[in-house]
Amino acid sequence: MLRRLVPRQPLRLFQWQAACARGASVQRRTWASTIPRPLGPWGAVGNSPPVCRRSSSTPASGPEVALTQERYPVKRLPFSTPSEADLAAFERIIPGRVVTDTEVLAASNVDWLRTVRGCSRVLLRPRTSEEVAHILRYCHERNLAVNPQGGNTGMVGGSVPVFDEIILSTALMNQVISFHSVSGTLVCQAGCILEELSQYVEARGFVMPLDLGAKGSCHIGGNVATNAGGLRFLRYGSLHGTVLGLEVVLADGTVLNCLSTLRKDNTGYDLKQLFIGSEGTLGVITAVSIQCPPKPQAVNVAFLGCPGFAEVLQTFSTCKGLLGEILSAYEFMDAECMWLVRHHLHLTSPVQESPFYVLIETSGSRAEHDAEKLNDFLEQALRSGLVTDGTVATDQMKLKALWALRERISEALSRDGYVYKYDLSLPTDTLYDLVTDLRARLGSQAKRVVGYGHLGDGNLHLNVTSEDFSRSLLDALEPYVYEWTAGQRGSVSAEHGLGFKKKDALHYSKPPAALRLMQQLKASWTPRAS
Amino acid sequence: MLRRLVPRQPLRLFQWQAACARGASVQRRTWASTIPRPLGPWGAVGNSPPVCRRSSSTPASGPEVALTQERYPVKRLPFSTPSEADLAAFERIIPGRVVTDTEVLAASNVDWLRTVRGCSRVLLRPRTSEEVAHILRYCHERNLAVNPQGGNTGMVGGSVPVFDEIILSTALMNQVISFHSVSGTLVCQAGCILEELSQYVEARGFVMPLDLGAKGSCHIGGNVATNAGGLRFLRYGSLHGTVLGLEVVLADGTVLNCLSTLRKDNTGYDLKQLFIGSEGTLGVITAVSIQCPPKPQAVNVAFLGCPGFAEVLQTFSTCKGLLGEILSAYEFMDAECMWLVRHHLHLTSPVQESPFYVLIETSGSRAEHDAEKLNDFLEQALRSGLVTDGTVATDQMKLKALWALRERISEALSRDGYVYKYDLSLPTDTLYDLVTDLRARLGSQAKRVVGYGHLGDGNLHLNVTSEDFSRSLLDALEPYVYEWTAGQRGSVSAEHGLGFKKKDALHYSKPPAALRLMQQLKASWTPRAS
Repeated sequence: MLRRLVPRQPLRLFQWQAACARGASVQRRTWASTIPRPLGPWGAVGNSPPVCRRSSSTPASGPEVALTQERYPVKRLPFSTPSEADLAAFERIIPGRVVTDTEVLAASNVDWLRTVRGCSRVLLRPRTSEEVAHILRYCHERNLAVNPQGGNTGMVGGSVPVFDEIILSTALMNQVISFHSVSGTLVCQAGCILEELSQYVEARGFVMPLDLGAKGSCHIGGNVATNAGGLRFLRYGSLHGTVLGLEVVLADGTVLNCLSTLRKDNTGYDLKQLFIGSEGTLGVITAVSIQCPPKPQAVNVAFLGCPGFAEVLQTFSTCKGLLGEILSAYEFMDAECMWLVRHHLHLTSPVQESPFYVLIETSGSRAEHDAEKLNDFLEQALRSGLVTDGTVATDQMKLKALWALRERISEALSRDGYVYKYDLSLPTDTLYDLVTDLRARLGSQAKRVVGYGHLGDGNLHLNVTSEDFSRSLLDALEPYVYEWTAGQRGSVSAEHGLGFKKKDALHYSKPPAALRLMQQLKASWTPRAS
Repeated sequence: MLRRLVPRQPLRLFQWQAACARGASVQRRTWASTIPRPLGPWGAVGNSPPVCRRSSSTPASGPEVALTQERYPVKRLPFSTPSEADLAAFERIIPGRVVTDTEVLAASNVDWLRTVRGCSRVLLRPRTSEEVAHILRYCHERNLAVNPQGGNTGMVGGSVPVFDEIILSTALMNQVISFHSVSGTLVCQAGCILEELSQYVEARGFVMPLDLGAKGSCHIGGNVATNAGGLRFLRYGSLHGTVLGLEVVLADGTVLNCLSTLRKDNTGYDLKQLFIGSEGTLGVITAVSIQCPPKPQAVNVAFLGCPGFAEVLQTFSTCKGLLGEILSAYEFMDAECMWLVRHHLHLTSPVQESPFYVLIETSGSRAEHDAEKLNDFLEQALRSGLVTDGTVATDQMKLKALWALRERISEALSRDGYVYKYDLSLPTDTLYDLVTDLRARLGSQAKRVVGYGHLGDGNLHLNVTSEDFSRSLLDALEPYVYEWTAGQRGSVSAEHGLGFKKKDALHYSKPPAALRLMQQLKASWTPRAS
């Protein structure tokens, strides 16, 4: 069965099992990729050259990550320990795909931020939902704990075991089941890699409704399990709206086939919604049906300098009005972020130094109309002083170069020292106040306090760095950041999920009545793990 | 507590309590509106002149609707019967708003299609969620059954009592709580009428993400409770994507405040999703937070004649490509529908007679760009023979006249005789086959078999008429229509919900494992009604 971490406590619900989230491809990960994949992005390793995550099979380098059970005050629930007989049983279910190789396991036990580590001794690679069902039914009967794992690109330590849970990998469940060339409905197995799906549907005139930095590694099942947000959220909205159906295997091995391809279906409770963002705690997503929007004919990116955060907000209002339906991204970063990508990654700023920068993307069906709208907006923004400098790209190379300034901030941060990461939803008006506030509060305790993110979605990525891990700095940050966020009725996890690291912060964003209902749900659907 | 209808049976889960759905304002409803409202549409009464639903207080006219408990094989659960002491207790909770007037109750006991009727003797009109909580807590303790009611515009008999349940009306919960003029986030009480909300946000440069024929009467809480689809679904998607937060009072009186205004929030299970489309069976929605998109600067409507259904489908593909992001509706109707609106409502067709008609709406931010896109599309559609005739409207009057041809089909049908209504989701390619198939199957048994609907969403409204109710015709239709739909992996209720009338058809669209989970959920959250 799916296991939980701690005995029942009012505000500590259960172990969240994230599978993947945004940002993986541009952060350090020194251990080897567990599963060779046809495609993979580059991951930077500390200050050393990037390592291709797809082909390396060398063991983890750098100092060993402390075991989670030793670093954190966690207690193993009375689950059984996998025996030789269990391994033999798994071998009968999925012959040749029961992995006990220590190097592979070493990699799959550690999250890619190298902050948490389990000690699982077996990884299973099913190919079908029937095999997943067989495995979970067996584990349920044998009282064995299971940890679902997708691309293992999560940001909150939810994709790796806490103790010795069996790792259930979706890596071999990577088949497209169907694609409808008129409606753009894609049905595929959970282990399909997002970037490969993007290429598949783009060749057919559509795009995936989500895009993430981790697209080269993350699995669509993990995206859905963690309700990944990312770069196209502003335009295409949440996975709660674009996912049409799911196939899920419950903890007892029951296959819940709600893999509908219908846009509308009002028959009974929309159960699939519960699994979107449940981070593997209610069942294992084995297949996904998702609505893909038509591929835009024209994409433009503008990179602009703004004199202050008030102007960042006003520029957003202005461009919403003038760009209307073609606006597809509105990202912002502060001057500290630009310093980081210039200093650590040697990227060049295409505009004059400014306190803030915004990246605006348009995606539309007619190039000349989009260009006219964008030009009119830029003219107004410059004339009114909202923007002091800017550049626009339409060709692929320059587009990517502008996006890199925003997308590689996370990588630059990891080269700046130890990083304290917060992924917050806040009212846009006050979103940056927390950064300013923290700079004053922390003073020289912090090396750097930076803010960037998806402003169009009210999503701030707040990052603080120090030379090395500092307990006193952490104490200055938490629960202060969470309390500040709660004071604004914000969310302590906008898109990364709770995982292992944020599970105790849940109550800052959800009331006690909601926590009780979640607990009831978990207890009812996975009774052995509750 | 919220009550259920029948003792637990494997495939008959519970009583669904719909509050409102599409189409009410253009269908017959001979009984008086229960609650005077500042705004209301016209409802046509059989063949007599339209009656304004907002001001009439005359009792129901026409033959009395048979009591549900007499017409259907239903059994009352052992709930208490409201006593004088209960009425006095309610009077203490909401002084002056406990309604026992027989005329008001007569109207609130009957659905507006006049097909089901309860015998409730008390209607409560709370103003706040605290009052709702107080009422539900009291009813829970006293074992009294409750029927939440919004605008009572539902199509499936879910908004009125089956027996003598207490009617809990949201009519006085009609306050806007907040509106954010930059983000377009609206927070309001559940009893706000959709059309009033539309006017409110349009005055501020935004639109509601949903629009329905019933907008003049239906409540936003009922829209969310029934996951209403409607006319803007193609553009703005499902309420699962646009609803940001809900406040719900559970059966035991617990207030679940998840009234977030955040676009992103990945902290725990997204509980609000369960209440969207739950039709009042899990709790009473008391407030809604919803994301409103910017108001389009330009709207165009094209009404076109197509030589066949294959051309309707090809026209859809063509316009998706050429209109791209400005396409906001793609509706179709067959020649029988046009005959109905011409014959019964004396509307004039703006185009030559054709086997099929499509209505295409564009909504964009720049009139000249939209016009150019639309003209290019029309030119191509005409040149290639997909479309044989057409007209385009940009001014409000003509826009409304074209929309009326599509929106008033339901009203015209009700004047044609007894109507058997089906609201199905089907793969678009085979969507019309069922209409053709039924015409052949039913022959002269049916007066008319017509098909129309939201083709862009794969949503067919299949309607069959006969002079009077005919059991043999019904037997020829059911379960045939449901089995046909299930054979296509379609949905037996695309947007109307299950209510009282479709609850036994749930298993045609959901597998046994899903039904078991729904049953568990219902049992766990409303134990007394399960």
